[in-house]
Amino acid sequence: MADLIEALRAVVGEAHVLVDADLRAPYETDWTRRFTGQASCVVRPASTEEVAGVVRACAAAGAPMVVQGGNTGLVGAGVPRGDEVLVSLTRLRDLEPVDRMAAQVTVGAGVTLEALQNHARAAGLDFGVDLASRSSATVGGLVATNAGGIRVLRYGSMRTQLAGLEAVLPDGTVVSRLTGLTKDNTGYDLTQLLAGSEGTLGIVTRVRLHLVPLLPARAVALVGLADTDAALELLSVARDRLASLSAAEIFYADGLRLVRDHAGLPAPFAEEFPACVVLECTDRTDPTDAILDTLAECEAVGDATVASDAAGRARLWAFRETHTEAISAAGIPVKLDVSVPLGELPSLVRELPGTIAAVAPGARPILFGHVNEGNIHVNVLDVGDAYSEVTDAVLRLVAAHRGSISSEHGIGRAKVAWLGLSRSPEEVAAMRRIKDGLDPAGLLNPGVLLPCETGSSG
Amino acid sequence: MADLIEALRAVVGEAHVLVDADLRAPYETDWTRRFTGQASCVVRPASTEEVAGVVRACAAAGAPMVVQGGNTGLVGAGVPRGDEVLVSLTRLRDLEPVDRMAAQVTVGAGVTLEALQNHARAAGLDFGVDLASRSSATVGGLVATNAGGIRVLRYGSMRTQLAGLEAVLPDGTVVSRLTGLTKDNTGYDLTQLLAGSEGTLGIVTRVRLHLVPLLPARAVALVGLADTDAALELLSVARDRLASLSAAEIFYADGLRLVRDHAGLPAPFAEEFPACVVLECTDRTDPTDAILDTLAECEAVGDATVASDAAGRARLWAFRETHTEAISAAGIPVKLDVSVPLGELPSLVRELPGTIAAVAPGARPILFGHVNEGNIHVNVLDVGDAYSEVTDAVLRLVAAHRGSISSEHGIGRAKVAWLGLSRSPEEVAAMRRIKDGLDPAGLLNPGVLLPCETGSSG
Repeated sequence: MADLIEALRAVVGEAHVLVDADLRAPYETDWTRRFTGQASCVVRPASTEEVAGVVRACAAAGAPMVVQGGNTGLVGAGVPRGDEVLVSLTRLRDLEPVDRMAAQVTVGAGVTLEALQNHARAAGLDFGVDLASRSSATVGGLVATNAGGIRVLRYGSMRTQLAGLEAVLPDGTVVSRLTGLTKDNTGYDLTQLLAGSEGTLGIVTRVRLHLVPLLPARAVALVGLADTDAALELLSVARDRLASLSAAEIFYADGLRLVRDHAGLPAPFAEEFPACVVLECTDRTDPTDAILDTLAECEAVGDATVASDAAGRARLWAFRETHTEAISAAGIPVKLDVSVPLGELPSLVRELPGTIAAVAPGARPILFGHVNEGNIHVNVLDVGDAYSEVTDAVLRLVAAHRGSISSEHGIGRAKVAWLGLSRSPEEVAAMRRIKDGLDPAGLLNPGVLLPCETGSSG
Repeated sequence: MADLIEALRAVVGEAHVLVDADLRAPYETDWTRRFTGQASCVVRPASTEEVAGVVRACAAAGAPMVVQGGNTGLVGAGVPRGDEVLVSLTRLRDLEPVDRMAAQVTVGAGVTLEALQNHARAAGLDFGVDLASRSSATVGGLVATNAGGIRVLRYGSMRTQLAGLEAVLPDGTVVSRLTGLTKDNTGYDLTQLLAGSEGTLGIVTRVRLHLVPLLPARAVALVGLADTDAALELLSVARDRLASLSAAEIFYADGLRLVRDHAGLPAPFAEEFPACVVLECTDRTDPTDAILDTLAECEAVGDATVASDAAGRARLWAFRETHTEAISAAGIPVKLDVSVPLGELPSLVRELPGTIAAVAPGARPILFGHVNEGNIHVNVLDVGDAYSEVTDAVLRLVAAHRGSISSEHGIGRAKVAWLGLSRSPEEVAAMRRIKDGLDPAGLLNPGVLLPCETGSSG
């Protein structure tokens, strides 16, 4: 180990190899505090070359590595199990000039989403992905987990934004696809393979991203509805009529009640509705009239309120966006992130409470999410000691509806045991063959996504 | 071999294993007639299960396979080198009902692009990819080559349309991702890995596709311009102002002359312009006024003509679309398909004639393509016996401009020798490790995309 520490110091400089327990500690626990483990050291490279040097030193020593970005992950993929070298990428913070002709930019993996957004907007463009942890989440982590967020409906997930990337493979070689070609059919798309691979196939160090037009006009509608079926009807009408639609978020009466109690918010409607949808439209000119016309056309609408000024929009978004905070304030929830084919969403939502009650009587499920993608964040409060039973029951119900046990958070360590619910043995075998081909010694993020094999380094 | 033929007959039935030379012949030469080779037999499975049976039989016999769709490829990936079992997928023609709520459809790999388009339109939706060989090109081939075409600007390439797929891996196992989940972060994206892999990692048998809105209103502008720089200026203004922009195609004066002579078309403008761009907008309401406003705003426009009726649109498109036919009528061209970063496009276009003349004096380069993607189809007439020299010189020039030697046609066999111009040794090594992981015996499309290794089955 002393030899490895020396080798790492030679690569990144003494100040950036943290061996002291106090210095390591902030990196060793994720922000949910559910995942924690000791690293043999934390190493903080500042360039692709330094990352490659770190990986080569670890490979030579047979030392497993765990890769960390902003440490905002929810499935424990970025913290050590024990004794790995923790490679933190937050020093890769280069923001290259925006290429306005191509509407692209190249940035370092350690750049936060917020810094990227500000950089794009300063050049008169915007970035297609947005999510709540924008001030901490890093671009490298967003790529490694193929992050989603609230604008997937309009712009797709993180993998859709990728025009290319640079990465260090487990053997320390560097692959670099940063020219930003929109069309390039010269073999396997390593960029797309690395996106969503959770750091198990390579360490993303730089990313070439597509940017989107910066649209100045915005309007938000909060709509009260009878149930999830009505929400799907509204969604269908909105997608048909509103080319400017950029978000469609759903939540339910119990979540709304929790949020209102927590934040002291007034009732949005005179009447109480079982389900609510927030629609947001973003355009070159004010989309308010288009939204109002659309709502008038849709019979499923129970009641609705629309705002186009910043304060009004924030007021409506707050009913949705305060969910996470209000839930955390009410206890330590089971947090699951699932999606099902859109047609299955109403029955999933109907069946979830009973499924959860069967294993944790008295538990309180709070559901909210991205309705267009059939993506529901299942938060369950008051589960007592039935954490694992609730997780198992929910994920099995999702699988029965042909859904994904991880819609946007990834598998990490948290869901490895349930991977088989979403991926067949044949698919897992194919993934394993790819992993073994690129990382035969199993040194990169062992135990993340795929279970450790007996006899391998994990 | 006789044993293998028997085994294949047991899988697909005797009528669908073609051993007679006359019956095999239509499958053994590509439509450019540049690539030809004998297959040991042609096998025509009709379902995923039959494809899996064919692959297992071949794997057991150690027999290499070559996979063919509509046989419209331009790089020789779908015809045998010699003695492979040719697996033709044209019988996988299932068109499942369109899922209007999800705006998705599942179809067999052998469905033609045209049949898919008609199927989507009958349900009030459309498919995002369109290209000239639509009546023959099959969905499986479009996926395997990540086909592009004229609407990439609006909807992206074929890989962007994929909501999932079903494929048979080289060991005969089936992976199936057909639930159409828009968000699913449960491990490596095998769908995206197989897209563009040219049949070397698996045989795509069914595909789940995103559909796009069927937009009824359409207008086309033909614009005369001073040069490629002016075309980029027009593109930039059009992208900023026309959310309905769906195509931007470029061609040049010598191509226009060839097309007019071939098809007897009148001059589009009173004056002759060095470059022309076709813009198409597609929208819910007539985009003509928006196009006219945009053209009026753009100083680079030399002259322009706009049409919104079907006959007028066809008349303007003909100047671009007749290029391939007019070139073929004038001789057997070198046909290359390249792209460069947009900022490099003007210098590439300026340098190509001199670069070609240096190795083939008297050769006539005709350039046209998809300007938004920096994608130029380089056709060179009258090259004499300098076919390979012209190819080499053009591809090296493209590489010097940080471009791709294959923008949308793939590597196939035609460009294997030049792969290193677009992909680094480290990338090729990574691709090889993936290939060896999934197809250790090298039985699937040997010699396509990656060179055959000494000692492997190719």
